[in-house]
Amino acid sequence: MQMVDLNADVGEGYGRWECGPDADVLTIVTSANIACGFHAGDPSTLRATTAIAATNHVAIGAHVGYPDLLGFGRRFMDLSPAELTDAVVFQIGALDGFSRIAGERIRYVKPHGALYNAVVDNTGQADALVAAVSEYDPTLTILGMGGSALFNAAERAGLATATEAFPDRGYTPDGRLASRKLPGAVIGDPAIVARRALRMVLDHEVEAIDGTIVTLHADSLCIHGDSPTAAIAAQQLRSALTEAGVTIEAFTA
Amino acid sequence: MQMVDLNADVGEGYGRWECGPDADVLTIVTSANIACGFHAGDPSTLRATTAIAATNHVAIGAHVGYPDLLGFGRRFMDLSPAELTDAVVFQIGALDGFSRIAGERIRYVKPHGALYNAVVDNTGQADALVAAVSEYDPTLTILGMGGSALFNAAERAGLATATEAFPDRGYTPDGRLASRKLPGAVIGDPAIVARRALRMVLDHEVEAIDGTIVTLHADSLCIHGDSPTAAIAAQQLRSALTEAGVTIEAFTA
Amino acid sequence: MQMVDLNADVGEGYGRWECGPDADVLTIVTSANIACGFHAGDPSTLRATTAIAATNHVAIGAHVGYPDLLGFGRRFMDLSPAELTDAVVFQIGALDGFSRIAGERIRYVKPHGALYNAVVDNTGQADALVAAVSEYDPTLTILGMGGSALFNAAERAGLATATEAFPDRGYTPDGRLASRKLPGAVIGDPAIVARRALRMVLDHEVEAIDGTIVTLHADSLCIHGDSPTAAIAAQQLRSALTEAGVTIEAFTA
Amino acid sequence: MQMVDLNADVGEGYGRWECGPDADVLTIVTSANIACGFHAGDPSTLRATTAIAATNHVAIGAHVGYPDLLGFGRRFMDLSPAELTDAVVFQIGALDGFSRIAGERIRYVKPHGALYNAVVDNTGQADALVAAVSEYDPTLTILGMGGSALFNAAERAGLATATEAFPDRGYTPDGRLASRKLPGAVIGDPAIVARRALRMVLDHEVEAIDGTIVTLHADSLCIHGDSPTAAIAAQQLRSALTEAGVTIEAFTA
Repeated sequence: MQMVDLNADVGEGYGRWECGPDADVLTIVTSANIACGFHAGDPSTLRATTAIAATNHVAIGAHVGYPDLLGFGRRFMDLSPAELTDAVVFQIGALDGFSRIAGERIRYVKPHGALYNAVVDNTGQADALVAAVSEYDPTLTILGMGGSALFNAAERAGLATATEAFPDRGYTPDGRLASRKLPGAVIGDPAIVARRALRMVLDHEVEAIDGTIVTLHADSLCIHGDSPTAAIAAQQLRSALTEAGVTIEAFTA
Repeated sequence: MQMVDLNADVGEGYGRWECGPDADVLTIVTSANIACGFHAGDPSTLRATTAIAATNHVAIGAHVGYPDLLGFGRRFMDLSPAELTDAVVFQIGALDGFSRIAGERIRYVKPHGALYNAVVDNTGQADALVAAVSEYDPTLTILGMGGSALFNAAERAGLATATEAFPDRGYTPDGRLASRKLPGAVIGDPAIVARRALRMVLDHEVEAIDGTIVTLHADSLCIHGDSPTAAIAAQQLRSALTEAGVTIEAFTA
Repeated sequence: MQMVDLNADVGEGYGRWECGPDADVLTIVTSANIACGFHAGDPSTLRATTAIAATNHVAIGAHVGYPDLLGFGRRFMDLSPAELTDAVVFQIGALDGFSRIAGERIRYVKPHGALYNAVVDNTGQADALVAAVSEYDPTLTILGMGGSALFNAAERAGLATATEAFPDRGYTPDGRLASRKLPGAVIGDPAIVARRALRMVLDHEVEAIDGTIVTLHADSLCIHGDSPTAAIAAQQLRSALTEAGVTIEAFTA
Repeated sequence: MQMVDLNADVGEGYGRWECGPDADVLTIVTSANIACGFHAGDPSTLRATTAIAATNHVAIGAHVGYPDLLGFGRRFMDLSPAELTDAVVFQIGALDGFSRIAGERIRYVKPHGALYNAVVDNTGQADALVAAVSEYDPTLTILGMGGSALFNAAERAGLATATEAFPDRGYTPDGRLASRKLPGAVIGDPAIVARRALRMVLDHEVEAIDGTIVTLHADSLCIHGDSPTAAIAAQQLRSALTEAGVTIEAFTA
């Protein structure tokens, strides 16, 4: 039997500013990457989002990022390893408090935005992120890109890992995400996205932007949750998977 | 046998900016009010300060404040009760992560600056602060001003409380702190401060700025830790107490 | 001939987070209250918004607020007069740079959110705001609530003032805005809002929430620009005014 | 007759946190690099610092940095060119308001910290910084490292430039600053610093950390102003220069 997790970024508002139909998205996904206040997410958003996730039995993940609200964590910041480790511990701790109040606890950690991209290659920051998780709670899983410096560091540290794939993003022939500046980098048609998701889960492959077939393994599929129509597209993808007999379940279940 | 706790505000730097001889102060006090990032305290300062406190067997307290780095938490902010509860949970959680990594845990919560003053009378904010502590961990103690709205709320909620007194601050005849704008509001001479501390602990009284003798009870004496000479004055006070046979011990011990 | 200005809050996004259909609203209003970075508005939003305002010949106003992104400037902050004066000078200067690059300059200053409410009565903050404007450029107009501490201070300082009214907000019998917590405080039906606007401009009166008729004078009508349908409602109001023969023109023209 | 400017970073406090003996340093230098609020410097510090600079006839420069208070602007941030241009315009505008209130105006712009290092090679950020200055006021001078991408961009844009040298920093044989991680990167002895300053000004050369003699030209010498003894060292350097017959004068004079 095929199984896969669906994850989405949620809790990405800040004070007055909202971001995405979280309440709807959290009825569809099985893992919630919740912003922890550094790139998005104020305390009241953390509380509301952890509460909805807990009610819906969605696994709570700490979506940790650079301290850059203005840039939404999407700009590389050259933090020292020690600074990054401390920034990650701070964010996990803050989210964990709300998770416990909601009767749950954090299950995994996923890097956000520019940090996500950095830890694919930047071993200093990858090691620093893993050090934070190991210190805080070595039973937490790391969710991210397979074959990355992050995963190498996590494996050395004995942390569990889960790999994710992006059905609505174009891939390069070497299995990385195509730059958003390239044509085909973002796929808008929900039907195509659903078909790509199925192929990822059932056949363990994706067609890259140049037509190459790339092999991949995905414990989880990442769904983008911040557009107004995100929930509709996510539901369409979930239905396609379940109709094909795929079980949708949190990778931490 | 007389006993008293000594507490001081520490961890009040932010990035490049340091604030006070924390490493020295933490060899003298028995309880450390550690800033949690909202009015002061960056992640690396939280780590360093909790580590030193743990090593020195100083009880760790969350010094929670308004989200106002620019004002150092010293300006009243009209947060709604829900906003304040969430802000306090966030801060406690962030500090608790570092405390646990240091092999310890948070023992108590103390409001900082303008929040400290607000919860003397502002029942909405007092209740909100107590709600946060009750939710996070009802075994935590509240450290603050006796007879305050905060203490009334804490008692209703079944939280333990500890009262503190300020040997280096002037008191009004009704037992409150004299405004810093009044003459005599801050006492600079360490010898006088030490004598006032002794009288507080041994005789349960303090001479107000108008000469009135005010009765008080202090589980803890608050020592100001942010001047360059803070550690010397603190040591002088501690010595005066121990020479008078007073045992210095954390109120959470 | 009747004349009135239409003003709206614009430029209230921050980084990733947008807020309201500014480009549409700026085709309708004659004065733009542009956020200056303290409660909303990042540098790139300031540039974009001043550029659109200049292109559309909309008068540029500095919408100054408390330093509270998290609270969107809607929470009272007890800044000292000196702190507030400096905060206002900083914000005006920052916006003015972009205005000049756009070939324009700031024409007026309007307080935002909790600061707007504070300077109705709080003479210390009202004086501080006026001091900032007087220092920066005494030819700037103050836009705000008539009969306020702010207007008294502005008149003493010799600054020009312009009064505004709120067609979509309920009024108390004494001519103040009804608290948003009261029924009738916010009027959603654009047709009713347009009728109230006409009555304000033509008859100099508004019906309060208790049915009392309140006399008022409005140099400007404030239109809320941060809902998705804001531009449609604004256009409807503008059309009602022009059809009634009212000229729509900036009060600083 | 030999002439040189002395510049120092000032205004680098933030709220409660002070940084360096600015009032003393501003009696010694001829150009003041004033932080503009993004990496340091709150509104009241901007006011105080511009006022002291104006009183002492010290030329006012905008010391612009990344939006990173926590990192004091010392961590590279991958801002897009447009974001950086806007961030620089914002900072210059904010400082210019206070400068004009002090009866002065900004004379030059100098990048701070990690931005200073970035624009030596990063042409995108160098061009972006120059674009901001050109737009804001093309009569402003750029103060920085000679031979840098920044200077190339400034020259293409027709901006005036002034080169600076660092008597208390070690140089590499190719005329760049040695990394602070290397031995000899920071020179603490004020007498040696003064001798190096003299050699820079009189002989247009400096001895690199490997003993190589490097030729350089300095319109200005940068003095570090953030240590408690900064003013004493600065005065010693200034005295050595004037005793050798060098005139100390702002490069913008």
